[in-house]
Amino acid sequence: MPIEIPDVVIDRLPVYARALAALDRNGREVVSSQELGAQLGVTPAQIRKDLSYFGRFGKQGRGYNVKRLLEELHQILGLDREWTMVLVGVGQLGRAIIAYGGFAPQGFRILGAFDADSSVVGEQIDHLRVQHVDELRSVLRATHVDIGIVATPAPVAQAVIDALVGAGVKAILNYAPIAAHVPRDVHVKDIDPVLALQSMTYYLKGELPAGSK
Amino acid sequence: MPIEIPDVVIDRLPVYARALAALDRNGREVVSSQELGAQLGVTPAQIRKDLSYFGRFGKQGRGYNVKRLLEELHQILGLDREWTMVLVGVGQLGRAIIAYGGFAPQGFRILGAFDADSSVVGEQIDHLRVQHVDELRSVLRATHVDIGIVATPAPVAQAVIDALVGAGVKAILNYAPIAAHVPRDVHVKDIDPVLALQSMTYYLKGELPAGSK
Repeated sequence: MPIEIPDVVIDRLPVYARALAALDRNGREVVSSQELGAQLGVTPAQIRKDLSYFGRFGKQGRGYNVKRLLEELHQILGLDREWTMVLVGVGQLGRAIIAYGGFAPQGFRILGAFDADSSVVGEQIDHLRVQHVDELRSVLRATHVDIGIVATPAPVAQAVIDALVGAGVKAILNYAPIAAHVPRDVHVKDIDPVLALQSMTYYLKGELPAGSK
Repeated sequence: MPIEIPDVVIDRLPVYARALAALDRNGREVVSSQELGAQLGVTPAQIRKDLSYFGRFGKQGRGYNVKRLLEELHQILGLDREWTMVLVGVGQLGRAIIAYGGFAPQGFRILGAFDADSSVVGEQIDHLRVQHVDELRSVLRATHVDIGIVATPAPVAQAVIDALVGAGVKAILNYAPIAAHVPRDVHVKDIDPVLALQSMTYYLKGELPAGSK
C-alpha cells in the first residue's frame, strides 16, 4: 500500500474523479491531461505527476481511458463501497446537511442524527429520527460508523469529537469553527467558510484602488 | 506588493491568524513557531517559511510577539476592514449560511439574499428580506459587493456565478457541487463536503482488515 503520498495529492484525486465522471456521462472515452488540466485549473504536468504515484495510466500522446481511470481512482480512494456516517448537531446547519442531496449518490449514508437539545430529540427529519447525544456511545457500539459529522456550536464541538473518537470513529467532517484535536490515526477535514473567505480577501485587497486601505 | 506567493501559503495565513487570536484572548504575549506549529499540525519550519514571504517577524530564539504578528496578518490578508457579500440561493443551506454566526464577527457582512423561487421572495430571514434573483444585477450596480455566496442547486450555479461576475464581483464562495468557470481575475473557493469526505476515505480504506475490500 502506498503510504508516502502527500495529502495534497490525495485531496486532488476526488476532483479528478469528478471531472472524469462528468466526461464519462457525456460519452467521452479518452481525455488528455491537457484537457483535464484546462478544465480543472491544474497543469497537465501536475495531473501526470499525481497519477504517477499510483502506477501508469494512459499512454504518451494517447490520453487517458476515461472509464478505466475513473474506476482506478474510485478503487484508490475507496469510493467503490458505501461509507456510514452519523451527524451530531441538528440545528439549521445540521438540517441542511441532512437535506443535502450530494452525499447519498456518492455512497455516503447518514445513519443517525444526534442533538443535546431535548426539544429536537424525537423529531423526524427526512429518513432520520433525532436521538439524544447521550445515546451516541451505545449506537456507535451497536453499528459500524465510518465518519462523524460535527455540526454543533463551537464550545461543545471538541467534546463531541472526543466522544466520536472514543467510540472508534476514525474520520471527522468538522463544521464547527475550532481546531479539532484528535489522535494521529484519526482524520479530520474542516468545512470552514470563514477560512475560505479570509484567504480570498488577500487577493481582493490587491485590487483596491491605490490610496484606499 | 508581493504577488509570487503560492496560494497554499495564503490559505494557511488565516489559520495562523486564528490561532494567534486565541492566544491573544488568553493573554499570551509571545509564542514560538514550535508551539504554534504543534497546535496546528504544521512544522515550525513551515510557519517560519510562510511568514518569511512577508518580512521578518520574531527574533531567533525569542518567538513571535502575538499581538504584532496578528495585526500584521490581518493587514496582509485584508482583515482590518469590512467585506460585503450577497447570497444567492435561500434553500435550507442558504438559511444555514444566513444563520451562521461566524461571518459578521470576522468582518464579513451579508447585504442581500436572492432566490429564484417566488414563494421565498419577500420572506424576512434574520436581517435580510429575500429578493428575486432577477434583481441581482440592479442591486449589484447600486451597492459595492465584494463576495458572492452561491448556495443554489448545481444546475443553475454556473449561471448565477456568471451573473455575479458579470456585475463585477471578484470573489465567489461556492457551495454548489460544480467546477465553476470564472475569468482569471476572479477568485473562487469551493465549500464541498463530498470532496472532503472522498479524500478521507483514502485513509480509512487502508484501515480495513485485510481481506475486506
